[in-house]
Amino acid sequence: MIRLEDKYALSFLKEDDIASLTPALQTADGYIRNRNGAGNDFTGWIDLPVNYDKEEFARIKAAAKRICETSDALIVIGIGGSYLGAKAAIDFLRSPNYNSIKKDTPDIYFTGNSFSGDDLKEVLDACEGKRVSVNVISKSGTTTESALAFRFIRSELEKRYSREELKERIYCTTDKARGALKNFADAEGYETFVIPDDIGGRFSVLTAVGLLPIAVAGCDIDGLMQGAAAMREQCFADGLNNVAYRYAVLRNAFYNQGKRIEILASYEGAFRSMAEWWKQLYGESEGKDGKGIFPASVAFSTDLHSLGQFIQDGSRTMFETVVRQEKPVNTLTVPFDELNTDTLNYLAGMTMNEINDHAMTGTLLAHLDGGVPNLMLTYDSRCEYTLGEMVYFFELACAASGYILGVNPFDQPGVEDYKRNMFALLGKPGYESQKEALENKMKL
Amino acid sequence: MIRLEDKYALSFLKEDDIASLTPALQTADGYIRNRNGAGNDFTGWIDLPVNYDKEEFARIKAAAKRICETSDALIVIGIGGSYLGAKAAIDFLRSPNYNSIKKDTPDIYFTGNSFSGDDLKEVLDACEGKRVSVNVISKSGTTTESALAFRFIRSELEKRYSREELKERIYCTTDKARGALKNFADAEGYETFVIPDDIGGRFSVLTAVGLLPIAVAGCDIDGLMQGAAAMREQCFADGLNNVAYRYAVLRNAFYNQGKRIEILASYEGAFRSMAEWWKQLYGESEGKDGKGIFPASVAFSTDLHSLGQFIQDGSRTMFETVVRQEKPVNTLTVPFDELNTDTLNYLAGMTMNEINDHAMTGTLLAHLDGGVPNLMLTYDSRCEYTLGEMVYFFELACAASGYILGVNPFDQPGVEDYKRNMFALLGKPGYESQKEALENKMKL
Repeated sequence: MIRLEDKYALSFLKEDDIASLTPALQTADGYIRNRNGAGNDFTGWIDLPVNYDKEEFARIKAAAKRICETSDALIVIGIGGSYLGAKAAIDFLRSPNYNSIKKDTPDIYFTGNSFSGDDLKEVLDACEGKRVSVNVISKSGTTTESALAFRFIRSELEKRYSREELKERIYCTTDKARGALKNFADAEGYETFVIPDDIGGRFSVLTAVGLLPIAVAGCDIDGLMQGAAAMREQCFADGLNNVAYRYAVLRNAFYNQGKRIEILASYEGAFRSMAEWWKQLYGESEGKDGKGIFPASVAFSTDLHSLGQFIQDGSRTMFETVVRQEKPVNTLTVPFDELNTDTLNYLAGMTMNEINDHAMTGTLLAHLDGGVPNLMLTYDSRCEYTLGEMVYFFELACAASGYILGVNPFDQPGVEDYKRNMFALLGKPGYESQKEALENKMKL
Repeated sequence: MIRLEDKYALSFLKEDDIASLTPALQTADGYIRNRNGAGNDFTGWIDLPVNYDKEEFARIKAAAKRICETSDALIVIGIGGSYLGAKAAIDFLRSPNYNSIKKDTPDIYFTGNSFSGDDLKEVLDACEGKRVSVNVISKSGTTTESALAFRFIRSELEKRYSREELKERIYCTTDKARGALKNFADAEGYETFVIPDDIGGRFSVLTAVGLLPIAVAGCDIDGLMQGAAAMREQCFADGLNNVAYRYAVLRNAFYNQGKRIEILASYEGAFRSMAEWWKQLYGESEGKDGKGIFPASVAFSTDLHSLGQFIQDGSRTMFETVVRQEKPVNTLTVPFDELNTDTLNYLAGMTMNEINDHAMTGTLLAHLDGGVPNLMLTYDSRCEYTLGEMVYFFELACAASGYILGVNPFDQPGVEDYKRNMFALLGKPGYESQKEALENKMKL
């Protein structure tokens, strides 16, 4: 189970800093249990690990099997929550360099998440000469980035495959009933999977959004759901004292002290993309109404030779949450070297994991001395069950934390602002008057 | 040439916010020109673009050619500044997925930058069955992360190659005369390249540290130096009004207003690793004495569906520097689609780059409305010359900015703190008393 240790953080807090948050936590807990807080239409993720559509789940596994059999590459088209979770899971479970390792599952390319023609062209080039399947993920089917990429990729695939063949190669994860993508998929006969109405993008990794690409990568999605279900059960059994709420309360206590940055630090390259997923989850859930803790991440020990200096000794505006992996996949033991020119024989016989652990503790104590509170989060290993636990832990903590902060953790009103401006500048029909206003602003 | 536009930032500043920094800028400029400020022993990067060792430069090119001819993979062993610059350059110039694109240059694996056994094992596995060369980069040769990785990799290579063969496969970038790695290389007959005494790790990308891996990736290192030299000449010709100093002054003006986070935003996947290099450069140079702007980065538009919400509407503690690429490598034109189910025909005939540019401007205006000042930095294209300009621009601006802030931009005293603790916990001879003190602390 996920463990949270706060002994390297508590000295920065007074008893009352935590106790005074209890009423807000109780309210948050009520909102979560009774689904009656702000954004309550988007709380489907709470029961998802035990309440998911088993028929669809089986279809996801079957589709993944088919894709693996018929494809050298899967292109996943989606932006934000429509790919960050899947990428995080695949990097964590398989490899942060998944596409370049030796494996018997397809390469996976994430695209449709920017307007960069160079980014898109790379994916098109990478798939040349390969047998390709596509998973396009969009609730509406009109999200500009993803829909554009789908246009390019479809027109490419239509040169290679017949309409009939494409039915076996294009999979749409979208609204259950409506929208441009759903209509198109039905008309063409593509298999569809559902983005539930009550689960927002950043909470969607355990829906078809994440599960299909994760399954194609050869991961055990049953284990993922079991881990999430176990964490759910544990948290609700532990009530207000559960580990997710504890994390939510502590980060709010630091926020109330004036900390404005949380740094998620890990010591495993495989965790890097998890941190990107976490940044979206927390940044988008809490960064509103002029509030919120800015989520940043580092990969240690390399970033100790980068942002490490800042954390040790720069502006004092941060706290750290250190993610610790208990068991490595591989046990490497430092070899003895007769020459010992590098003077490292004092480490011979030690495992890399032991050394990594000491580096972590040493760093933690150093940052503590530098005035940075450190929370420590331990997970077991890079396996599906652990990942399921971690996903649910971070989601539940995020909901509670947002409610304690006093925001709606499930909306993202600010995301519309750039879209509106962009549509106007691109000349989208209906945005004419806004275009003129913007162009005047640009003249300043 | 790099252009800096401040019209989306100036409305947040009063005339005096900038004018009042002129004396500090004059002082900084004097320190830089006369090499008499704090850390002046580490200002070798200033004249490097015109003053580099031409004989070594030719040897680097020859070594790169040899590595390309004899190797399927190059393993680069180094931490912090010993790999971030090379990785940034290769990702920017070739591809952020360099190892998985089709190419006629070797794969390049960066390792020795963490204690994760899993990270190291991945590189060992990836190189199985491949013809391998190694570039180990360490001033002293005793940096724990890198030296440990070198131990593992050497013991692996010794199984495959004779001592004679290894002379053609191991290249050491290290101190010119002293240290464990230099001694070892000389004893074994490995070719060595120099980490100059007067250039710190984070300023070292245009030395052999960066140049050898960059050249192996097939990039034109002459172009890189020419771009840097051109930027150097331009900046010193423009005096106090140069573009790098302007950036330095503006970011200090925002810092003085209470902004504590700078977000470097780009719209090209190829720029992601450049942002990591930038984070080290600025974070390590400025984050000290309780001061500094925390450097963070985003890749738009995808992160508009992640940290975008926070930037638009969360805690108001940040300003943004938007990096704009003028010319794409590939021009992709949006195809017309008769069905138009995605309703995007209004974009048909437009290039992705035009759309990307509108997305950028739309976002910039939205963030402006959200109260976030935006600086805009335009570079020409993903080519060596441009990259050279950019490297020099950021380095010079960083030195000036640090001096304006009142810190030594060239030291990193905080990096020693974690090392000291780590050595103690690992039982390194000579750290016995500190070990006991730390273990007591851990009991708390």
